[in-house]
Amino acid sequence: MHTIRLAVDVKSGDLGSQVLLEGVLEAKRRCGIDFIACLCGDGNSIENGLKQLKHGGVHSDSFIIEDSPENVEPGEAPSRVWKTKKRSSVIRSIALQKEGVVEATLSAGDTGILMGAAIFMLGRAGKASRPALAAFLPTVADRPSLVLDVGANLDCRTEHLATFGLMGHDYYRHYFNVDNPRVALLNIGHEPSKGSRTLADAGQRLAGECRGYCGFIEGSDVLSGKADVIVCDGFVGNVLLKACESFHTLTDSVLAGSRRLAKAVRKKMTILNPENYGAVPLLGIHGVVFKAHGSSSAEAFANALIAAVTAVHREIPQTRQDVDRKGWL
Amino acid sequence: MHTIRLAVDVKSGDLGSQVLLEGVLEAKRRCGIDFIACLCGDGNSIENGLKQLKHGGVHSDSFIIEDSPENVEPGEAPSRVWKTKKRSSVIRSIALQKEGVVEATLSAGDTGILMGAAIFMLGRAGKASRPALAAFLPTVADRPSLVLDVGANLDCRTEHLATFGLMGHDYYRHYFNVDNPRVALLNIGHEPSKGSRTLADAGQRLAGECRGYCGFIEGSDVLSGKADVIVCDGFVGNVLLKACESFHTLTDSVLAGSRRLAKAVRKKMTILNPENYGAVPLLGIHGVVFKAHGSSSAEAFANALIAAVTAVHREIPQTRQDVDRKGWL
Repeated sequence: MHTIRLAVDVKSGDLGSQVLLEGVLEAKRRCGIDFIACLCGDGNSIENGLKQLKHGGVHSDSFIIEDSPENVEPGEAPSRVWKTKKRSSVIRSIALQKEGVVEATLSAGDTGILMGAAIFMLGRAGKASRPALAAFLPTVADRPSLVLDVGANLDCRTEHLATFGLMGHDYYRHYFNVDNPRVALLNIGHEPSKGSRTLADAGQRLAGECRGYCGFIEGSDVLSGKADVIVCDGFVGNVLLKACESFHTLTDSVLAGSRRLAKAVRKKMTILNPENYGAVPLLGIHGVVFKAHGSSSAEAFANALIAAVTAVHREIPQTRQDVDRKGWL
Repeated sequence: MHTIRLAVDVKSGDLGSQVLLEGVLEAKRRCGIDFIACLCGDGNSIENGLKQLKHGGVHSDSFIIEDSPENVEPGEAPSRVWKTKKRSSVIRSIALQKEGVVEATLSAGDTGILMGAAIFMLGRAGKASRPALAAFLPTVADRPSLVLDVGANLDCRTEHLATFGLMGHDYYRHYFNVDNPRVALLNIGHEPSKGSRTLADAGQRLAGECRGYCGFIEGSDVLSGKADVIVCDGFVGNVLLKACESFHTLTDSVLAGSRRLAKAVRKKMTILNPENYGAVPLLGIHGVVFKAHGSSSAEAFANALIAAVTAVHREIPQTRQDVDRKGWL
């Protein structure tokens, strides 16, 4: 088996390179799958950072430093950065993937910039009119639900929602090895008459094109496990995901008296804790691109990296360049 | 002190008139404030229903039966029903309020129809370009947060969001008797550059017009108590509210081993349990109109009715016809 190579944008995130480097070293120690990390960012500071951490006891062969120190200024147009900031860490990461040097990219940077680079440099996969970020939510059932989009597309038209359904169906199918995951559109009611024209039209398209489609669900069913894949626009998905992430703060305050039970609740929420899930995949582009939380700690970033390595290793469908030719149904 | 009169649309909700009548009787027994309920619906079936329940031990002077048996068909235009279905229970309820016979209306029927009737028959209050439904969410802080809109307006322009902020500020101020509640706009990030043009513009307007405005908050801060009033469009608010309502299903499954703690968590969520909060007010119109859950049980409807009676009794600002002249700031 070949050694997986990933580009890691260590000049991203809110807490600085050193925290992300710690995460990379932790992932290297913990991940059962072998990988080499191409660390993109300021070359000198990465080298010094690794020395300071004494390489975390990891052999230096596990890293390639890719000097890409250019800054991307806030407010730069995502559609241009990939041309104007070729020596920035995020663009260099995606470029390495485009060149075939690495098989995946992980970044904790700006979602828009990352998505722009992925679209323009790697290209859209198959039927995806737009890529989407997909995240898991816990349910009372055995398996979590996949929610998409959770922040890449604030405003979605019918075809976007419909392709999210198809992409989610494909991803979930391979991720859990189930034949026909149930796909639902998130709405304010389950009756066909509810919600916007866009949702009604997306429902009609999915009914025709996605064999797992099972209609509308409401917010109250998001955690029920009634649907395996929950489709919504990126604004709604982002608010929903983050609100769910913070649920445990309420239970923590109530369960302060019982550590054991507070821990049990938190365990159920594990999948929601950014520290644990680490990163979400960008579906609908050619190649594996993971977006980590901007505020990733070392542990979160380590888990993010392990998630990306695992996705490449397991050949989850977003990794297959031929997903468009195989069709989605 | 005068006796409060309310119109109660008992021909609404998914579970039938009899369940709602039970709720009315329960409210009458439990509510500390005296009120008379004008029961709108099919006169005969109300009379028989009350007999069957033996009036729940409540004196028959507490009720006025207002025969209004006409059906509103699904799909009728909310902008026309108030003219074409004057003898339907929901339109008759609002008409009684318009005529000054009652001071408030409670209905578990269709939100669109109820809002249309309220707008066209009672009129918008002051600066409200559109009315909004407002609901409380629990927080880790001492007081809950008020979220609006939670389902009356699926698609909102700048001025709608801005007036929701002003209405919420006013309502919260009077509800909790605090001088200057913090008002925030729900967004996918707290940085001013995040989100849509509409949100950015609404933020600018609120910064100028609402002294409690404190910027954007993310989904992760919804339960943190960082804002007293959280403004969003009705689609996002509806999904968020319902997801939060269902959160206890997750904790219940985890805490099955400890009834005491499961109960403690549920208690924290009390405000979220439709059985408890019963109904949400429609802000931004002249008069008190409460919308109960379509699936209201007798207990939920009783609590809804008590909430409406309490709002009239406490003269929460939506009840004041002069709210527009007093200004919002």
